[in-house]
Amino acid sequence: MRISIIGSGNVATHLAAALKNAGHRLVQVYSRDIQNAALLAYHVGAEAIDDLNHVSSETDLFVISVKDDAIPAVARELASYHKLTVHTSGAVDLAALTDVNPKSGVFYPLQTLSKNKEVDFLTVPLCIEGADEEITTTLLQLAQTISNNVYRVNSEQRKILHLAAVFACNFPNYLYGVAQKLLGANNMGFEMLRPLILETAQKVQERLPAEVQTGPAVRKDENTMAAHLQMLNGEPDFEQLYKLLSQGIIKNDIAQHGHK
Amino acid sequence: MRISIIGSGNVATHLAAALKNAGHRLVQVYSRDIQNAALLAYHVGAEAIDDLNHVSSETDLFVISVKDDAIPAVARELASYHKLTVHTSGAVDLAALTDVNPKSGVFYPLQTLSKNKEVDFLTVPLCIEGADEEITTTLLQLAQTISNNVYRVNSEQRKILHLAAVFACNFPNYLYGVAQKLLGANNMGFEMLRPLILETAQKVQERLPAEVQTGPAVRKDENTMAAHLQMLNGEPDFEQLYKLLSQGIIKNDIAQHGHK
Repeated sequence: MRISIIGSGNVATHLAAALKNAGHRLVQVYSRDIQNAALLAYHVGAEAIDDLNHVSSETDLFVISVKDDAIPAVARELASYHKLTVHTSGAVDLAALTDVNPKSGVFYPLQTLSKNKEVDFLTVPLCIEGADEEITTTLLQLAQTISNNVYRVNSEQRKILHLAAVFACNFPNYLYGVAQKLLGANNMGFEMLRPLILETAQKVQERLPAEVQTGPAVRKDENTMAAHLQMLNGEPDFEQLYKLLSQGIIKNDIAQHGHK
Repeated sequence: MRISIIGSGNVATHLAAALKNAGHRLVQVYSRDIQNAALLAYHVGAEAIDDLNHVSSETDLFVISVKDDAIPAVARELASYHKLTVHTSGAVDLAALTDVNPKSGVFYPLQTLSKNKEVDFLTVPLCIEGADEEITTTLLQLAQTISNNVYRVNSEQRKILHLAAVFACNFPNYLYGVAQKLLGANNMGFEMLRPLILETAQKVQERLPAEVQTGPAVRKDENTMAAHLQMLNGEPDFEQLYKLLSQGIIKNDIAQHGHK
């Protein structure tokens, strides 16, 4: 497939590389910043542009991978080409595209992507939605050329996935940082916690979280929890987090939904 | 070294196996439940006992790996043997042992261990404390026979580590469960989130959490956060968690302690 990428951020970078590796032809990379466009374009053998008026019509697919707020405006600018167009956002409705172009879809990678961190794209879950069955089929087939984890997901489900990803990724990462801060204040380094963090994530690769929950809260060990709250005395925000998360574990409100 | 294990739980099981694999001789395994003692004893070639009056004095080290509350009582029962004795708890002071036996120490594995989940013990951080320099040296040497991550840690630091582990392991696991529940309520399975969870933990193996924080809060994306809170409307506990964790990320209160 001939594909043009609108954007040069984390998702654009990883997606363009994966598409190139799978044998697709990358036509153009657009960024407002021509240097960013040029860097990615060079890697994937495409032309760099910084003006949407210079978009080539010699393409089969536009992938819009820009900030959520900018998606509708970019979609309007591309609509006159009447090409298949997708965005890559977890939070934006498909309607943001179909409002201006019926040949639209979504291509949402459910993964935390950073430019300077390689990832095996075959493992990245790709969540696909098309404006009609034909488009959906085309996008599912395209997705399967770069990932072994392709899902058909509607706009409502995708928004839930995006919210769930905040709980499964952004919030745990913040808690890693809280743990690091507690150690740092006592002359210990974050490297002590890295094996624990990795094993915690590996444990749920084949099990469900409720099956492998450990710690004082799940044991209802009131003495240890009281001692921990005492230690957090000078950090009211961390104290409140400790209480709220421990209460959740004690209530065991995650156990009811046990299906894989 | 000749070693006897008092306890047959998760830590006792993994530690006994690692010590056996490293060539040490496991003398006895004690559990109140003789079947549990027998199961572990069989695996490590030791004798199973369910009565502390049957403890053999033909050993160099007692490893007490029982519930925190039970440690002082067990230590008292073993004191008459005058053998080197350690406990494996993150939360219990060394004094719980030295009160009855000066030849005491701590051997705390900073890892989430489950009987039915194998772990490469060489990667498990072992936190060592001894009642004097000679004991500390002995325990550090023993620890290095089974782990490449051996740390000397005093009782105060160990309690901080134990607290930090709650933030780095128990709380993230609970949040994985919250994410699973959100998906389940919308007919999606937890397997969709597994690659994201693993990558989030892998990212901090070589970087610090503040360097790889992603998501709406760190972008200060108020629209997305408002939409997420709207979606959590029926779950007041999750709503409160979302607010508190997002506020922490926005404040960026984990970034100041950036040393590795």
